[in-house]
Amino acid sequence: MNGLMMDLPLLISDLIKHADRNHGDTEIVSKTVEGEIHRYNFREAHARAKRLAKALQALGVKMSDRVGTLAWNGYRHYELYYAISGVGGVINTLNPRLFPEQITYISNHAENMALFFDLSFVPLVEKLAPLLKTVKHYVLMTDRAHMPARSSPGGSIPNLLCYEELMAKQDERFEWPRFDERTAAALCYTSGTTGNPKGVLYGHRSTVIHAYGGALPDALNLSARDAVLPVVPMFHANAWSLPYACTLVGAKMVFPGPHLDGKSVYDLIEQEKVTLSAGVPTVWLMLLQHLTTNKIKFSTLKRTVIGGSACPPAMIRAFQDEYNVQVFHAWGMTEMSPLGTVGSLKAKQAALPKEARYAVQAKQGRGIFGVEMKIVDEAGTELPWDGKRFGELLVRGPWIASGYLKGEGGDPLREGWFPTGDVATIDPDGYLQITDRSKDVIKSGGEWISSIDLENIAVAHPAVQEAAVIGVAHPKWDERPIVVVIKKAGQEVSKAELLKFYEGKIAKWWMPEDVVFVAELPHTATGKLSKLTLRQQFKDYKLPA
Amino acid sequence: MNGLMMDLPLLISDLIKHADRNHGDTEIVSKTVEGEIHRYNFREAHARAKRLAKALQALGVKMSDRVGTLAWNGYRHYELYYAISGVGGVINTLNPRLFPEQITYISNHAENMALFFDLSFVPLVEKLAPLLKTVKHYVLMTDRAHMPARSSPGGSIPNLLCYEELMAKQDERFEWPRFDERTAAALCYTSGTTGNPKGVLYGHRSTVIHAYGGALPDALNLSARDAVLPVVPMFHANAWSLPYACTLVGAKMVFPGPHLDGKSVYDLIEQEKVTLSAGVPTVWLMLLQHLTTNKIKFSTLKRTVIGGSACPPAMIRAFQDEYNVQVFHAWGMTEMSPLGTVGSLKAKQAALPKEARYAVQAKQGRGIFGVEMKIVDEAGTELPWDGKRFGELLVRGPWIASGYLKGEGGDPLREGWFPTGDVATIDPDGYLQITDRSKDVIKSGGEWISSIDLENIAVAHPAVQEAAVIGVAHPKWDERPIVVVIKKAGQEVSKAELLKFYEGKIAKWWMPEDVVFVAELPHTATGKLSKLTLRQQFKDYKLPA
Repeated sequence: MNGLMMDLPLLISDLIKHADRNHGDTEIVSKTVEGEIHRYNFREAHARAKRLAKALQALGVKMSDRVGTLAWNGYRHYELYYAISGVGGVINTLNPRLFPEQITYISNHAENMALFFDLSFVPLVEKLAPLLKTVKHYVLMTDRAHMPARSSPGGSIPNLLCYEELMAKQDERFEWPRFDERTAAALCYTSGTTGNPKGVLYGHRSTVIHAYGGALPDALNLSARDAVLPVVPMFHANAWSLPYACTLVGAKMVFPGPHLDGKSVYDLIEQEKVTLSAGVPTVWLMLLQHLTTNKIKFSTLKRTVIGGSACPPAMIRAFQDEYNVQVFHAWGMTEMSPLGTVGSLKAKQAALPKEARYAVQAKQGRGIFGVEMKIVDEAGTELPWDGKRFGELLVRGPWIASGYLKGEGGDPLREGWFPTGDVATIDPDGYLQITDRSKDVIKSGGEWISSIDLENIAVAHPAVQEAAVIGVAHPKWDERPIVVVIKKAGQEVSKAELLKFYEGKIAKWWMPEDVVFVAELPHTATGKLSKLTLRQQFKDYKLPA
Repeated sequence: MNGLMMDLPLLISDLIKHADRNHGDTEIVSKTVEGEIHRYNFREAHARAKRLAKALQALGVKMSDRVGTLAWNGYRHYELYYAISGVGGVINTLNPRLFPEQITYISNHAENMALFFDLSFVPLVEKLAPLLKTVKHYVLMTDRAHMPARSSPGGSIPNLLCYEELMAKQDERFEWPRFDERTAAALCYTSGTTGNPKGVLYGHRSTVIHAYGGALPDALNLSARDAVLPVVPMFHANAWSLPYACTLVGAKMVFPGPHLDGKSVYDLIEQEKVTLSAGVPTVWLMLLQHLTTNKIKFSTLKRTVIGGSACPPAMIRAFQDEYNVQVFHAWGMTEMSPLGTVGSLKAKQAALPKEARYAVQAKQGRGIFGVEMKIVDEAGTELPWDGKRFGELLVRGPWIASGYLKGEGGDPLREGWFPTGDVATIDPDGYLQITDRSKDVIKSGGEWISSIDLENIAVAHPAVQEAAVIGVAHPKWDERPIVVVIKKAGQEVSKAELLKFYEGKIAKWWMPEDVVFVAELPHTATGKLSKLTLRQQFKDYKLPA
């Protein structure tokens, strides 16, 4: 017997309809590519999204057609989020920071039938256009005045259309179509450090439930009293759900465009009375430097959500102690829509002394309802949540991927669980701490050693600039850890001294077998340490006898 | 094309599983019928819910079987919420405050195969048992020590079982079954002032989405830092989602049992460090009187949610000005799971001067995402949200009823919308204000007059004790309002004086045609003014010429 409740699909278009009706005059502010401030509200955004929806249909966009974007965080990108998904199409947010070959691969794999792009990306699109096999329409996200007179000598963009002209041809008499809530809505590719990027295909249902979960008091805690600045890009994992979740609650949105330097972000926060911001540690580092240099403070910012990579404890301290901004450490991944955990405190932790509270905040947070987690050992046996044992992290829930577009990479699931590729501990209160990537963890004598823990100790030594720990083959123990170290300029430390430095800080069997000093360490395009390359460099390395 | 996300049903059992894993040691505190405090946590509650689930299955409870409860807010009732729905059954929460004939009608109509009841209700169940045609098992929610030695002389309860004995026979090795999320989970009957009560049948999907919506910052704003005291009964519209939503976020729950007098509620709030409470105005009146009489304050209570009937502005003032407790006025109905609107402020209203802010708070609040509202005139034409025009309120959303059990009352929907039976204005910010019940609104010359507005003015006159406004037939205008008034003891006011008192406060065509002084006014069993009876009393009344 079924319940007798209305059987209505959860659709993305309902979000913007709700915001229009209930928060019509709440502002959406964008710093444009040109540097000017654009300002309108949910009512106008919805009206334009409806006109854009008609324009997309006029271009031939039908149910499940993919449409690519190469764009910063801004109001036109926001309109595309709603218009493309709203008509039943799939928005494929392309990451302009990838290599052009990767963008080409992704667009062709996604079979995007149109590409919308910001003015900044004209040179890039000129280069890419001849290679994009499926794109029929190129739309520059600007008005007629900013359209280039002709393609530059270096390339050509066929049939270049003007966003505002397409929009101007339509009116807003439009009813969003209703369809199955499982319908695909958005497509985001994983960065793919090994192999080709793989497409994660979000649905309307998963996106709306994720937005509910993301807005909760213990997640991003979004309300109609907030002004939210998403620094995290809309081309990366739905900007952590903010374009959806802010719309769900009617929060003011402030989009920074490409202007992510410390001064630009600070000025925008102050001018627009931002209460919450969200982004990766790198951006916050620039922001904190700007504050320190200029001896200035925030007047309205209350909370910041930090994720994408681990937030250094010093950053949490700086925000909270010096600027009175509460930090929420978060963890997730493209395959998780992307929110997994947020580091909000429970009543008992909120009552702890400061240092103990900070230790909890340094962890990646606890699971939002909708995200089930477990950690397992190599045999797949579930490990206890004791905050000590670490194992591979598996997740499950209605906003977590079950596979990749076109079945790339095969079925990723293990008995219904998605393997995150992270190794973690979970404490009895449910706080997750990522200890390693599973491909980097060192397997020694059937037990695991965290490469990140060993690296953190090494860099705590005053003479160490940077350190990487990898496992190398060992006849008896399978693998043993070695530390690869760059010394600080003008500083000295010997192998024996560094190993001595580890004593008392780790279990004896975690002790690195060797210390290797190098002049530089390999990094990926996005600035992360590339252990893959490092392991290749050390493939002929032999452990000391 | 569908999204490639995990296709997992939203099930009620996932809520308690999540709380067990992530908030295992968070407390659930209950003041029992006997007056003692019972204290355990989510981990123990889940373990017991699983044992109870097995006990239910041992009693023969299968998918979609209905199981009744007659119980106060307490931990055993909480366990029944999860165990009954968790095994795929339907919990039918019976309201012990109804007339016994109504309870009998409901239980027979629901075809409850078992009845669980608190010690307080032994005499009631003894009386009802011979009339409950479908109930095979009677389970007293207590331990062996409190079981009655024999049935009282006045009645008999066949096959009386002991809750704790059933529980003791089972262990907690149990996996919650997975099934379609549209499966029925809970059944609550409307009070039915006219005709028989009608059954609203909630599903797992509607309940889980409603819990997400209810926990949002602008709704009940629930987090793992809260201790929540639901005064609103679990036998009435799911206690406004609190047993689900608190579990979703891991908030401490504090159940008052039958002890709802001012002192009991106050003591429990203080002892258990309650931060949020929720209930109807009557209970808050008792609580405020207790505070005033004893000159005491709250030390931890921060917010209170008031609904069920309109919250008097004086109550909002008392809580906020004298006790520093923020009031959230809420509106909903059994057919809406029940949450519709909550009166949380937006940024712009939070910045208003106090009196203007209080005027916003006196309204019933704005719609949570998931609740779509519209107001229409008699022709069904939609009216603008200008805060002035009032019309019949219709609602739509995934947690709103599409019909009643067994099709009672026919199809309630109008083109997919549920007619609430309320008449309301909605202002441009989406704040709802209930102005009348649609059966009480006065239809004069094709326009509507709010009976409540006219009553509020009458009772503002110093000589008026109570007033009721009804429409009476008029040859030209269809209906015209008259005021039926009880004067205060020892006070005098004439018809002419009272009509004079209306001048300048209303549009001229709203002016009552007559004032009738009476010694008493008819009320329903729950203490509400019965306009139905009043209209019958006035059926032969003739308007003055």
